[in-house]
Amino acid sequence: MPSERSPPIQRRRALLTGGTGFVGSNLVKALLAADWEVHLLVRPCAHCHLREVRTYLYQGEIADVISAVQRSQPEVVFHLASLFLAHHTPEQVLPLFQSNVLLGTQLLEAMRIAGVHSLINTGTGWQYFERDTYAPVNLYAATKQAFEDVLAYYVEAAGVRSITLSLFDTYGRGDPRKKLLPSLLNCLETGDVLEMSPGDQILDLLHIDDLCAAYLQAAQLVRDPERAPAAIYAVSGGQRRTLREIAGLLEQAAGRPLRVLWGARPYRDREVMQPWRGTPLPGWTSRIDLRDGIHSLLEERGLLRTRSLELETTRY
Amino acid sequence: MPSERSPPIQRRRALLTGGTGFVGSNLVKALLAADWEVHLLVRPCAHCHLREVRTYLYQGEIADVISAVQRSQPEVVFHLASLFLAHHTPEQVLPLFQSNVLLGTQLLEAMRIAGVHSLINTGTGWQYFERDTYAPVNLYAATKQAFEDVLAYYVEAAGVRSITLSLFDTYGRGDPRKKLLPSLLNCLETGDVLEMSPGDQILDLLHIDDLCAAYLQAAQLVRDPERAPAAIYAVSGGQRRTLREIAGLLEQAAGRPLRVLWGARPYRDREVMQPWRGTPLPGWTSRIDLRDGIHSLLEERGLLRTRSLELETTRY
Repeated sequence: MPSERSPPIQRRRALLTGGTGFVGSNLVKALLAADWEVHLLVRPCAHCHLREVRTYLYQGEIADVISAVQRSQPEVVFHLASLFLAHHTPEQVLPLFQSNVLLGTQLLEAMRIAGVHSLINTGTGWQYFERDTYAPVNLYAATKQAFEDVLAYYVEAAGVRSITLSLFDTYGRGDPRKKLLPSLLNCLETGDVLEMSPGDQILDLLHIDDLCAAYLQAAQLVRDPERAPAAIYAVSGGQRRTLREIAGLLEQAAGRPLRVLWGARPYRDREVMQPWRGTPLPGWTSRIDLRDGIHSLLEERGLLRTRSLELETTRY
Repeated sequence: MPSERSPPIQRRRALLTGGTGFVGSNLVKALLAADWEVHLLVRPCAHCHLREVRTYLYQGEIADVISAVQRSQPEVVFHLASLFLAHHTPEQVLPLFQSNVLLGTQLLEAMRIAGVHSLINTGTGWQYFERDTYAPVNLYAATKQAFEDVLAYYVEAAGVRSITLSLFDTYGRGDPRKKLLPSLLNCLETGDVLEMSPGDQILDLLHIDDLCAAYLQAAQLVRDPERAPAAIYAVSGGQRRTLREIAGLLEQAAGRPLRVLWGARPYRDREVMQPWRGTPLPGWTSRIDLRDGIHSLLEERGLLRTRSLELETTRY
């Protein structure tokens, strides 16, 4: 029986931005499962229905962020909020800056004031178009790099320690984003014809559970005083395949063909044919095989081929 | 007598941001003297009293910038607008971004839409603190770097050609900025005591006329298709001296001592002791000797030592 004087066990505290998005909401669950105390900075329009999570409202003001960091006093800040746009219109320049540069800077400034030092940041492989050094695919990637420039200042002048996880494509159950796999699954369901590019671009798909494990690993590494104060690691699914090959895996698992018109559309301007390699995150590797991940997506939608069909196929 | 059919001579057209500041207003005069047609993007609070200059109002919206670029159709855009802060408060994070990152991005977006390709950008030697690679002295320098990373996108994806002039310290007649030389001149005038750091930091002072010549030279180079599409050049006065030495030059020219308490204040946090070197702007060199520049400042304020005093000194 513990003595009455035994100190309460201090749970590690995390503050997240972007905690209500697809990646963020999965990370929240993973943090809670690992017994972290979870705090979220959220926009008025965002909703988090988990009772054990504390939320702080962000209405664009730095005072909102300072208050959230001071009140939550996190051990680690996970910065996931981002506006992703493959292409932008002139009117989207401002929201791109607000989401991808300004918010992060307000967060770093609040960390400086509150004496919070550990940041896990989210970058993109698109900051490195056909090169190992900075070459942005689009303005979205440029704003991500712009934030890293700001981060460098806080690392040098305010003692911040950071790890930036550079993401490629992510997927998983319950993904509401208009991405490749959900689109292909829709076509399987409806039988609709999908017009695609020639499909020879190589994708790096990472399962959301693997990504959450990467964030947790980064949170371990970031406080290690033996490590460089700022690091950028690529978070690769480790199974790079062309878009056509991925469609093939889906057809195989579903036991029926997709109606895709390959080459009906041109490649995008500045299409990434070969993703960046980058330095892998130490102590972490993806565990979920793409075939298993796809199996799970099909299962979720009731699109797996039936056992009888499988037996039939096995007979040949 | 020219024939009636001879075409009108096309003057080169420039669009400037920051055209009403100290550097900008001098550059406007230099451009007019070189027979450029000059257009300015100005904030509602800024004033330009030159009748031959056309102004376009900037109220923070990208539509303002698109309209200005489309209507002026400049051959070269000179981007000088900037908010300089040696140190920032949390409330200044937003204005730093608006002035140093967002406005420039709106300008590039407008250039893309209007098919304007040449940009002369203004950087700072403070982006390179004690290193040859990026290491920002302060958040101001970090926002300058953030803009350069946005610029890289427009260079790669929108055919923009740019030259960034990295500035150190500038000076000249009529300078309303609270900088070193005006402060020292005020002390000479009033006899007030000035409390200073130990004064061993090396400064690189460039005369405003030399800087204007550098901008004009950059405008020549930027359109040369043989050159790299994006370049960064250091614009050095070529006469690096310690703060104490500069005060000494002033005392010498004025023929009387400054009342400076050296070491009464500590160096600034992240004080630049040795400015960055960088690659010099090709085809340009500073021409105005620091002694002559200082002479001209003293003359402007009526602080030059009298001839009799000069003779007296010569006698010793």
